[in-house]
Amino acid sequence: MIVALAGGVGGSKLVLGLARVLPPGDLTVIVNTGDDEDFYGLRVCPDLDTVLYTLGSLVDPEQGWGLAEERFDTLEMLQRYGAATWFRLGNKDLATHLLRSLWLREGLRLTEVTGRFAAALGVATRILPMADAPVATRLMIAADDGAGERELAFQEYFVQRRWRDRVVAVRFAGIEQTAISREALEAIAAAKAIIFCPSNPVVSIEPILSVPGMRQAIRSARCPRVALSPIIGGEAVSGPAARLMADLGREPTAVGVARLYADVLSHFILDTRDAAQRPAVEKLGLQAGVLNTLMSSQEEKETLARALLRRIGVER
Amino acid sequence: MIVALAGGVGGSKLVLGLARVLPPGDLTVIVNTGDDEDFYGLRVCPDLDTVLYTLGSLVDPEQGWGLAEERFDTLEMLQRYGAATWFRLGNKDLATHLLRSLWLREGLRLTEVTGRFAAALGVATRILPMADAPVATRLMIAADDGAGERELAFQEYFVQRRWRDRVVAVRFAGIEQTAISREALEAIAAAKAIIFCPSNPVVSIEPILSVPGMRQAIRSARCPRVALSPIIGGEAVSGPAARLMADLGREPTAVGVARLYADVLSHFILDTRDAAQRPAVEKLGLQAGVLNTLMSSQEEKETLARALLRRIGVER
Repeated sequence: MIVALAGGVGGSKLVLGLARVLPPGDLTVIVNTGDDEDFYGLRVCPDLDTVLYTLGSLVDPEQGWGLAEERFDTLEMLQRYGAATWFRLGNKDLATHLLRSLWLREGLRLTEVTGRFAAALGVATRILPMADAPVATRLMIAADDGAGERELAFQEYFVQRRWRDRVVAVRFAGIEQTAISREALEAIAAAKAIIFCPSNPVVSIEPILSVPGMRQAIRSARCPRVALSPIIGGEAVSGPAARLMADLGREPTAVGVARLYADVLSHFILDTRDAAQRPAVEKLGLQAGVLNTLMSSQEEKETLARALLRRIGVER
Repeated sequence: MIVALAGGVGGSKLVLGLARVLPPGDLTVIVNTGDDEDFYGLRVCPDLDTVLYTLGSLVDPEQGWGLAEERFDTLEMLQRYGAATWFRLGNKDLATHLLRSLWLREGLRLTEVTGRFAAALGVATRILPMADAPVATRLMIAADDGAGERELAFQEYFVQRRWRDRVVAVRFAGIEQTAISREALEAIAAAKAIIFCPSNPVVSIEPILSVPGMRQAIRSARCPRVALSPIIGGEAVSGPAARLMADLGREPTAVGVARLYADVLSHFILDTRDAAQRPAVEKLGLQAGVLNTLMSSQEEKETLARALLRRIGVER
């Protein structure tokens, strides 16, 4: 059994590669839920859904998130009623949020709800939310635009304002009230390897590690624990990873990412473009590996997954 | 100010005619909510929405209910997740149910929610639900299919089973916990006429009259109170009106309808095809009028509205 930690778009690429090269059901993904937010009273879990839709072969191949061939009839009608519609929920996507909200209100845990979706879509990979109770990543932004320092909800920062703000602090509201789930604890305890996908370190991986019990469980696992960097050559492959690291005073490089998790890792994979950072990674007490970690095609996702598993001693 | 009582498709035809011939804002419609039901955790109010969409010029002109040019992407995805989808909710229609459910959970009354929709769609007619608290029309059906006598929710009877069952009793669950709203009470007190639209007497008009305080308020109004029959020539213009009347031991004719409301009416309009029932209606103590009450075209709706208002002494 392999466990992967993942956020949305970047992480789900490697998750898909792993799911394709591992025997069905041998992969468990623990997914960030700090991005979750309510829209029109519906619980939206962007990272969980990106992983679900990717593994269910339903994802929009251009965007890497959302469903393929979406239309926006509901959203247009909501707009007609005067509702805010900057968060673009598609017609089909809404079905997921509707059922999730219904089932949560009926008392199911988010873990169980996610399991129902995966079963319905024929996804053999176990998809686990990092926590059942809600967590809200919130970003304190600088006063650059004259509006004063203030806190944004994640989707406000990420989607509505397209991560244009300078971030001075990040917190995960509600995280102290969560706990690692029985399912995540069992998956980690049984893991032959734990893989930190190349997701945003600040707002995808860090919230997962901040769930009470999670860091301890991973540190205690007697298996290779390896991370990949979403920052290659000093730039994020996509999204605000490098920008956020720099804003928060962390080095926006692969080794900067390695430093964030060094306490719970045994291995770290550098991209070939960052091979020169190997000594710095080894100084953190980690075994360093160098691989081509850019995944453009489906083939590259599987190639990386295979190489990664081989590198940490898991034979495929 | 004119007050109309209405259910869905049949009633909204006359409501539209009245709205077109009266000055903007001079019409208040009190609408049946016994058909309301939750689907996927959303509050669906079919009759309110039929009146809203009709007056907002958004209704599907073929069906007489639902929105024009609907598609069913969300429903198809819900089906993929294994949800029951016999109640066909369109993409755009879902926006109404989403916002209504959200606003109700936020504490707004159904009357206020409905007012928001009307304002957003530019509808000048005041649309009032018969009650703010939920009411559920339930039908006890006979054991004809061998399954035993049992009770159905309204949409189960009407949409899922296409009113094929023999009905032995009807009740309006929750009606004792409702009360006539301040808005309905004021509209009735200020009315120059109260018009019972040609809606289903058993499951559209009767629930409205059963709201505590409603019958008394209408009886006390010092203005003409007139009803039209949805049964013409012994047959319902559409839907199960005649069938239900017969099932429940009532005469499935216009005069049978008149008998149901005679205690609160001053006038009753017979269709030209039913002119022979005039003496029977007059025996109930009502002033009888005869008009062509079939409304196929938009013009016929307005013609009937004008003739009706003239017949009860409201000059237009």
